[in-house]
Amino acid sequence: MNIKSLILTAALCLALCGCQSKGGEVNVADYLEKYSFGDDNTLAFRRAVEQARKQKAEKLVIPEGTYHFYPELAFEKYAYVTNNSAGLKRFVFDLTDMEDFTVEGNGSKFILHGFVSAFTIDSCRNVTIKEFTMDYARTFHSEGKVERVGEGWVDLRFPDDYRYAIRNGNLYFSDERGNNYPFSHLLEMNSERREPEFMASDYWLTDNTIPAEKREDGTVRIFKDKLTAKVGNVLFLGPGHRLCPAIAIDESAGVNIHDVTIRHAGGMGVVAQHSRDIELLRVYIEPEEGSERMISITADATHFTHCEGYLRMIDCHFFNQIDDATNIHGMYGVVKQILEPNRIIVFFPHDQQYGLDVLREGRTVEMLKQMSLTTYDEIEVKEVIRLNKEWYEVAFAENIAEEAAVGDLITDMSYPEVLIKGCRMGNNRARGLLLGSRKQTIIEDCYFHIPGSAIYFEGDGYYWYEQAGVRDVIIRNNTFDNCNYGYYRWGTACIAVGSGPKEDREASRYNRNILIENNKFIISDPRIMNLYSVDGCTFRNNEIIESDAYPYTLGETRRFVTEDCVNIDIQTK
Amino acid sequence: MNIKSLILTAALCLALCGCQSKGGEVNVADYLEKYSFGDDNTLAFRRAVEQARKQKAEKLVIPEGTYHFYPELAFEKYAYVTNNSAGLKRFVFDLTDMEDFTVEGNGSKFILHGFVSAFTIDSCRNVTIKEFTMDYARTFHSEGKVERVGEGWVDLRFPDDYRYAIRNGNLYFSDERGNNYPFSHLLEMNSERREPEFMASDYWLTDNTIPAEKREDGTVRIFKDKLTAKVGNVLFLGPGHRLCPAIAIDESAGVNIHDVTIRHAGGMGVVAQHSRDIELLRVYIEPEEGSERMISITADATHFTHCEGYLRMIDCHFFNQIDDATNIHGMYGVVKQILEPNRIIVFFPHDQQYGLDVLREGRTVEMLKQMSLTTYDEIEVKEVIRLNKEWYEVAFAENIAEEAAVGDLITDMSYPEVLIKGCRMGNNRARGLLLGSRKQTIIEDCYFHIPGSAIYFEGDGYYWYEQAGVRDVIIRNNTFDNCNYGYYRWGTACIAVGSGPKEDREASRYNRNILIENNKFIISDPRIMNLYSVDGCTFRNNEIIESDAYPYTLGETRRFVTEDCVNIDIQTK
Repeated sequence: MNIKSLILTAALCLALCGCQSKGGEVNVADYLEKYSFGDDNTLAFRRAVEQARKQKAEKLVIPEGTYHFYPELAFEKYAYVTNNSAGLKRFVFDLTDMEDFTVEGNGSKFILHGFVSAFTIDSCRNVTIKEFTMDYARTFHSEGKVERVGEGWVDLRFPDDYRYAIRNGNLYFSDERGNNYPFSHLLEMNSERREPEFMASDYWLTDNTIPAEKREDGTVRIFKDKLTAKVGNVLFLGPGHRLCPAIAIDESAGVNIHDVTIRHAGGMGVVAQHSRDIELLRVYIEPEEGSERMISITADATHFTHCEGYLRMIDCHFFNQIDDATNIHGMYGVVKQILEPNRIIVFFPHDQQYGLDVLREGRTVEMLKQMSLTTYDEIEVKEVIRLNKEWYEVAFAENIAEEAAVGDLITDMSYPEVLIKGCRMGNNRARGLLLGSRKQTIIEDCYFHIPGSAIYFEGDGYYWYEQAGVRDVIIRNNTFDNCNYGYYRWGTACIAVGSGPKEDREASRYNRNILIENNKFIISDPRIMNLYSVDGCTFRNNEIIESDAYPYTLGETRRFVTEDCVNIDIQTK
Repeated sequence: MNIKSLILTAALCLALCGCQSKGGEVNVADYLEKYSFGDDNTLAFRRAVEQARKQKAEKLVIPEGTYHFYPELAFEKYAYVTNNSAGLKRFVFDLTDMEDFTVEGNGSKFILHGFVSAFTIDSCRNVTIKEFTMDYARTFHSEGKVERVGEGWVDLRFPDDYRYAIRNGNLYFSDERGNNYPFSHLLEMNSERREPEFMASDYWLTDNTIPAEKREDGTVRIFKDKLTAKVGNVLFLGPGHRLCPAIAIDESAGVNIHDVTIRHAGGMGVVAQHSRDIELLRVYIEPEEGSERMISITADATHFTHCEGYLRMIDCHFFNQIDDATNIHGMYGVVKQILEPNRIIVFFPHDQQYGLDVLREGRTVEMLKQMSLTTYDEIEVKEVIRLNKEWYEVAFAENIAEEAAVGDLITDMSYPEVLIKGCRMGNNRARGLLLGSRKQTIIEDCYFHIPGSAIYFEGDGYYWYEQAGVRDVIIRNNTFDNCNYGYYRWGTACIAVGSGPKEDREASRYNRNILIENNKFIISDPRIMNLYSVDGCTFRNNEIIESDAYPYTLGETRRFVTEDCVNIDIQTK
């Protein structure tokens, strides 16, 4: 058999066995004409992704351009996204079960319309999404310029972007297609600094509205007891829901998000759960330069629950979002019944953490006391019966410890190694980095201008039910530029322990081994560090520069507060 | 081998082959102690049903008693229930994949608390549920007694059953556990007759509330332009959602519901889709005798979409519910794109019919014109790609007819044989029986006191998108006792064609072959029959008795109106 006939035979064999072309790339351009309807490109993109899945393509190529996406023809699934709102969601990109796959945006711009998210990355291995900017035609929040202020009222002028109506004496927002945009809290933003107004706190509303009346000059007067704001500032009116995060990652390993800009989302920016080996490189979550819009996304920039492997954020920007820059944690369930010595009923109380199925057969879990957060048992799970999205019956290989009682906490013991490097963040609502992994966590070369604590050690068993408790944290070569200028309850110092253990604080040692060195602290607010229940913290070789950028109005004047701690070494020049 | 050793050997074989006990019965009593928490019996019932499924039991025995069910530990699934609200729902009884199985209530009373439904009957064969009464601790609607009336306002007194608060100047209802009970419409009920007030119409609200203020005498004044009611009457304030139907049936064959009383549900009573051979025997949907409560359930008593085989309702009561006694129909999808001569994109427009997946591979479907409802093609479906709960891509074995155009309708061609016999119904909102099956439909020995049309031939392609168009209906030996006393838009006569074809009415012949004989019509309202686009209707041997039970205030004085019909034979003595 000569070469030619060998090739022919091989080709024939391939044809006969019905093999489709594998690998290679799929170009969205090939689907745009047939599957775009009006300006809606959603189905064209779906078809391209489906073809990529079918042929196990290595790459989806999106020619540089501006694309519009509507919910109508988007992929749909019921999704539990940690610390966002669960629901039957629509996604433009359904990356489920993809392997060794790259979505290449080539600098494209995605404009989403209405209640639809951009990406679900579910059960993937080694996927990269890169080089695009996303925004929404109508933001999930609204912004009004403060024109007049009186006792218990503020007059706001809304740009055309924020379509509204007053019904039954209350204010409602919508878009041009009739979708309702509920809102449940207000926050005053300083127009010049483009950040939360000094010491401004949230106003929480009921029933997704506020009493309002239309004024003859085209402004809207809103009414609330003790409501106030400065003329010229901007009032943010934001949703309680987090229905449309930008990029949601679940049960995946090896997820790279590179050169992606998220101008807006109705929830978090990048949010991952039960996943490992995640890298964000030059992910920018911030308003467009020169845009009137004050707020980027309506919740945390990033959020990671029960992740493992590595978690890297490098050279990212997290600005003007309505919650923390990141939060890395697990979730506590509560023991509600002890049915047998090795069998319990568990409830996960935080309603934005329903459906995550934290407890899994064959894994070792910890059991701990609710108020002190002291672990008293580590035990293997033998069986998990999911009763529904928040209740579980759990059986163990052995009997649980005798001290176990109704009200105790239980959780899985998975944590990622964390590297946050070269990132810039600030002008957002609340805190910066909420660190809760028990593996090594390095924060370096970052810039912080956070209105609350820049670095926060959270974790509690009675309010957020977030598992945390660090064991090895290095904070070095960062600049903390006038943090803590916002609402006083967003943190007790630039670096602080948050909710934490409530009882037995001296014995708890919930957070351990924190090294803070070679940083620069620029402070109008003197409170650099506030720790409790910590075992091991070294503060050395840091530069402290006093500033008068903000007034300081609180009582505490100590730079360093440590309570119920051991092995603390604070060195100041 | 003697008999004894044969038996022993057989027993040994059974033991060795690991057979569990099959068949037999499971008694809920065996689970109550271990799996009841406080007064919540939900998990005990779940465990009993699970055991019944496991051992393929013939019967679940519920000892006579009063049982309480809460959502917390209930079975959960995302459910699309036709003409109810889709959602992640909780059910007390998860009857999925059961075969030859009976739930025996023995006269028990089930009290449900909050947002939970009683039964999902899904993919079952030959199941019976019988002998129980169900109610809710807090109804999904509220009822207020009218104490004073002014221009655009009414003062209501709410019994303690209907917990409320006024916030932002608007009225909100709740229960003792903090659940919100939204409401979107009002209807005035005559307190003495316990039925909708003569000619009273719905008031539709926005944003699930109404402006209100608390009065010193403990009443609540609600405000709405043109709102009025009679002092002493009761105002119903009801939900727009239908989240918690009582009994939802899907993809099942052989479902018997016998001797079941449904006092309340937050949606429909018995609702079935894609199922066959359903029998309701002595199903009573009505308020308890002597109860102050005016309204039974908040939507249709029964509802059947795309059912087949037989559908029987015998000796049932359907009273005081907030919608029709029954509605038997299919669903129209709309052609939105013609991609290829044999490939189209279809959208199902009615949002309470999302997710039902009407078009299925291998089935023959009809295609018809939207406004005339004239069928022009019957064609086999080759492939269905579900884009999401309301959008589908559909391919056919052959090319579709050349006259097919965007905007046309498409639907499956499944219909049940219907027998409604010995049933009593009335005092509800809107209509009685909405008949849309193309198979034989017999209505006999029934009693009607319906505020709208007692028998209604609906079906349209532009509003409800409900497929109907009868072919063989017999209406005999019934009493129509003063129907049409309610809102004038609930029907143009005691027996009437409803929405129907809008264009080409003379050619359409959408409803055919209706025989009305040996009935008694007691009429304050002269309008006995109003038909259009009908081919074949015989009215004979009916007794007509004039009554002055109600005034008659409308313009139309003709007893019989037929337009654009053929083969009409009306015989009156």
